[in-house]
Amino acid sequence: MSALEAYMRRQRERIDAALAEYFPVDPPHPHRLFEAVRYSLLGGGKRIRPILVLATCEAVGGDSQRALPYACAIEMIHTYSLIHDDLPAMDDDTMRRGRRTNHVVFGDALAILSGDALLTEAFTVLAQSAASDPEPARAWRATREIAEAAGVRGMVGGQAADIAAQGVTPALAMVEYIHVRKTGAMLLAAVRVGATIGGADEASLRPLTRYGECIGLAFQIADDILDAEAPSAVTGKAEGRDTQLHKATFPAVIGLPAAKQRARELLEQALAALRGFDARAEPLRDLARWVVARACEP
Amino acid sequence: MSALEAYMRRQRERIDAALAEYFPVDPPHPHRLFEAVRYSLLGGGKRIRPILVLATCEAVGGDSQRALPYACAIEMIHTYSLIHDDLPAMDDDTMRRGRRTNHVVFGDALAILSGDALLTEAFTVLAQSAASDPEPARAWRATREIAEAAGVRGMVGGQAADIAAQGVTPALAMVEYIHVRKTGAMLLAAVRVGATIGGADEASLRPLTRYGECIGLAFQIADDILDAEAPSAVTGKAEGRDTQLHKATFPAVIGLPAAKQRARELLEQALAALRGFDARAEPLRDLARWVVARACEP
Repeated sequence: MSALEAYMRRQRERIDAALAEYFPVDPPHPHRLFEAVRYSLLGGGKRIRPILVLATCEAVGGDSQRALPYACAIEMIHTYSLIHDDLPAMDDDTMRRGRRTNHVVFGDALAILSGDALLTEAFTVLAQSAASDPEPARAWRATREIAEAAGVRGMVGGQAADIAAQGVTPALAMVEYIHVRKTGAMLLAAVRVGATIGGADEASLRPLTRYGECIGLAFQIADDILDAEAPSAVTGKAEGRDTQLHKATFPAVIGLPAAKQRARELLEQALAALRGFDARAEPLRDLARWVVARACEP
Repeated sequence: MSALEAYMRRQRERIDAALAEYFPVDPPHPHRLFEAVRYSLLGGGKRIRPILVLATCEAVGGDSQRALPYACAIEMIHTYSLIHDDLPAMDDDTMRRGRRTNHVVFGDALAILSGDALLTEAFTVLAQSAASDPEPARAWRATREIAEAAGVRGMVGGQAADIAAQGVTPALAMVEYIHVRKTGAMLLAAVRVGATIGGADEASLRPLTRYGECIGLAFQIADDILDAEAPSAVTGKAEGRDTQLHKATFPAVIGLPAAKQRARELLEQALAALRGFDARAEPLRDLARWVVARACEP
């Protein structure tokens, strides 16, 4: 097992344990809703976003235990977005992370409510943990960052633009617009929130923001490439689903070789942004390399 | 125009103006999402919840200008819940506030996203306004209160229980369970948040909580009665929609006369809870009377 694999497994275990506590197996009520939430929230997943929160917090010398609720909130928001995006009214996906999607198992009504529950619970977690934070200004800044990244100028806006672009072949600028908002904003928020809670000053926050922007976009380009190339056993989704939906993707607009080239450039820029950081930023560097290698190595 | 009508109109104008600013007519992007959000958020509505926030803040001697963002956030959350509840996968309602529902006009995908956008924006507003709050502890408490009332143990949980109960004739205890969570929790939160931001102490918060619980339940019973009795011109919804859906309602379980009796009792209890408050609580008393009178007077 590589150093990164061991690191990711360790962090994933912390995150999974914390997430499970927020939605207990045997809630007083209503069982079926909790079951639906747990199905999607605890059903695997690489936990890239929460790992980025913890890794960035550690990279700036912070105590990642304090960042854990923020990591969980971001993963809840990510999971809600997957559940809603998979709905028949949206992308109509039936497979996710190698399992049937939430609405296929629990029906559309509970899938909508599970997403709503996760989004709301994320902010409950933020409000609860911030109440005990010795530095309220930091906590507010992080909460605001997450809300804005998830909202109309971030993830939800990106998803709306994505849906509007389906069926037409959008220009490269529009594909980038969608990716930056739909996926990039929350990945960037994960990095910036980890840094904020870790106590980063402005001088550290700037290069970390650059790192977050680069891997945010690289991550989505890599995802597009995997969707176009990899069998569904690797992606956990139905094969070539983006192509079926005529989704706005980098490979569709600039071709696979150029998309891979762009991902590699973004990796270089991400690594360059971390040049001033010491060994504690190694997991961040490894994560960036891993994101791109998954899609671009033979 | 009665004193209450004048009061409600004045507060409604403040709230409507503030809400409109959060979703400008001409956003950079994506137009259609903002249009869908504005359609539901600014398409009328009695604004009971935000008025309760402002009225309670004023009743305890607070500056209701500081409570305005909280009032707006609560109305955004209420509007999101209506949009999602109306979806074909949920209650499949086509009329709301006398107009076609969001998904009928904009399609299911944008309706889901509009709801997601409103829920997220509510917390953006809370995080933004709290950041400038001179008393962060209060702001956190209010934000947490709203998040919990909207979540799995509140509104979303109530909606899940409501859907699970459709088609069966539930026991009175289950109807009350659903109402307390689905509608009551947010109405109670409106009262408690107004009190919190207004600077209420524990001694004031306790009776106001009692008031909020009583009018929360009375409001939903009144709504059930109106749905069963009033023509759709009054409710703005399709007539007898609850009955069609075999919804868990008070009239369905205990009959109309007993439901009206219960609403009147709750009004008495709400007024009794406010006994120790001075004239500044008059709008709260009038609101309670109005809620019950709408449904229970000949």
